[in-house]
Amino acid sequence: MGEVITIALDAMSGDLGAETAVEAAISVTGKYTDLRILLVGDEAVLAPLLGGAGSGQIEIRHASEVVAMEDALALAVRMKKDSSMRVAINQVRDGEAAACVSCGNTAALVAIGRFVLKMLPGIDRPAIITAIPNIHGHVQMLDLGGNVDCSAEHLNQFAVMGAALSAVVDNIESPRVGLLNIGSEDIKGNELVKDTHALLEKSDLNYVGFIEGDEVYLGDVDVVVADGFVGNVALKTAEGVAKLISSYLKEEFTRSPLNKVMGLVASPVLKSLKNKIDPGQYNGASLLGLRGIVIKSHGGADAPALANALSIARIEAKKNLISLIENYTETKLIQTGA
Amino acid sequence: MGEVITIALDAMSGDLGAETAVEAAISVTGKYTDLRILLVGDEAVLAPLLGGAGSGQIEIRHASEVVAMEDALALAVRMKKDSSMRVAINQVRDGEAAACVSCGNTAALVAIGRFVLKMLPGIDRPAIITAIPNIHGHVQMLDLGGNVDCSAEHLNQFAVMGAALSAVVDNIESPRVGLLNIGSEDIKGNELVKDTHALLEKSDLNYVGFIEGDEVYLGDVDVVVADGFVGNVALKTAEGVAKLISSYLKEEFTRSPLNKVMGLVASPVLKSLKNKIDPGQYNGASLLGLRGIVIKSHGGADAPALANALSIARIEAKKNLISLIENYTETKLIQTGA
Repeated sequence: MGEVITIALDAMSGDLGAETAVEAAISVTGKYTDLRILLVGDEAVLAPLLGGAGSGQIEIRHASEVVAMEDALALAVRMKKDSSMRVAINQVRDGEAAACVSCGNTAALVAIGRFVLKMLPGIDRPAIITAIPNIHGHVQMLDLGGNVDCSAEHLNQFAVMGAALSAVVDNIESPRVGLLNIGSEDIKGNELVKDTHALLEKSDLNYVGFIEGDEVYLGDVDVVVADGFVGNVALKTAEGVAKLISSYLKEEFTRSPLNKVMGLVASPVLKSLKNKIDPGQYNGASLLGLRGIVIKSHGGADAPALANALSIARIEAKKNLISLIENYTETKLIQTGA
Repeated sequence: MGEVITIALDAMSGDLGAETAVEAAISVTGKYTDLRILLVGDEAVLAPLLGGAGSGQIEIRHASEVVAMEDALALAVRMKKDSSMRVAINQVRDGEAAACVSCGNTAALVAIGRFVLKMLPGIDRPAIITAIPNIHGHVQMLDLGGNVDCSAEHLNQFAVMGAALSAVVDNIESPRVGLLNIGSEDIKGNELVKDTHALLEKSDLNYVGFIEGDEVYLGDVDVVVADGFVGNVALKTAEGVAKLISSYLKEEFTRSPLNKVMGLVASPVLKSLKNKIDPGQYNGASLLGLRGIVIKSHGGADAPALANALSIARIEAKKNLISLIENYTETKLIQTGA
């Protein structure tokens, strides 16, 4: 516990503004005494918000620009060299911080992360991974939108990185890795999953084979691997269904005065259900494959959700995720010469 | 209403046995006086189950064999020429029935359907489509597992067939067709959806562009087009999430004696919610692209669910879905010469 972990937080890119970033930083430094936060952004905005809070664990790093959600990628990457996102990532490159967190535009974060930090040896593309709730607690799924038109070698790299993340974040010694497919028999699936399956079967990973879409939520694996198109569809579909059921519940419990009474009686249980499927508790997607820890928080994250993303960054830094990915890449990645 | 619609029902392939098939046939003929059912299967089994029921609307067609769920495809298609599934499809080919329904193995049904009925002109592969609940009622989604590694031309054909089905089954004059993608801007997506988008934009369909996974459940389209891999993942993911939330609800409402009381009080509402997300009410997936109407019922369908599949077959036959698909294929399919 002696070591201090420093995290750079892009304080300007969230939908809820710098106040939320400051609130999250104060809350998470209160929880972890080994944590130091570099609040990156406009000092004139951040200093009054911070006031005297943070008891020495929070410092401001000035950045004069902000990457807007609607900024073209070229503008964000090439022109805004003093954006809070860029400066936060620079802290990681320069060894000033062990990790960085941003609520900003995902594509810009991936592009700037890749430009500033570079890729790890043996990894071709950054992948996005996050925990999603399932019947056993949660499962880590990647890739969630960074990569379409993947090769089997890419999915193999994702599997290796996902296993390393699960080992670090979920504290699992040998994470079970499943490959998302449309059937559990070997004959099913498209060419991509068949080729990936052949590679993963040869690897030293704890590869358990194919899993179907429903098993992401009901099955028994620690890491789910998919290409970015399929993974993103699965994630968005799940969000849609959860919202649909919430809307049904609300509708049913307001249909009549009697139903409203039932809803009042049951409200503690419904609230507990709501907490269980609250995406905020899983907020914080890791960009894997870079030479540094970069966490993407949801743009609309509130302070508790953003604090959760900061906690994930802390664990990944504390347990040295990057070293483990390098180690897994050397020892568990099947080389195809492709 | 004068015209009689005859449907061949494979009575032997469901998990719940021939009793369920007979019960569904009796129930649906009681509901629709214009409906006649050919119960296809072992006469020695079916005759005693039917007894004197069906008031002249139900007849038995003997078939000596059954395609088992675990049968190899080659066996099911080439060897079992007197299977209840094959004989049911034969009734459609021979003009004895206007449609057929089976609870049996999907791959066998597609293969036998294709072998016996042949494809419609301009359509390369059969696609599977079903209604799934969404916030506006339901949406028709295809393909759900028949086709992986599709081309843009295939997805274009799916869009045309899906629109025809929606026009017939949902009684919508110009169904809105969406293409499942991972972003709503033109720049996102893989090569397949980009190429398909270019084709659909040129077509005479009411094509509304890309939709994301959550919009299947929350959005405002009538038909969702995807390749069979992505469509199946989306469908299975949704099933998984719905089951997960059901299990959370059950867990919450049994956590303590007080919670149990709340659950009892709220039980009418919870039951109504359960009915709303009951997949049985949407049972009946259509195999599109064949020269005849073939409906796949869920293997574990109970009598009400199977009756629903029979009702879908009735509407498709009554409104002549096959003619409309032929018409749409001639007038709305973009020819690429590929």
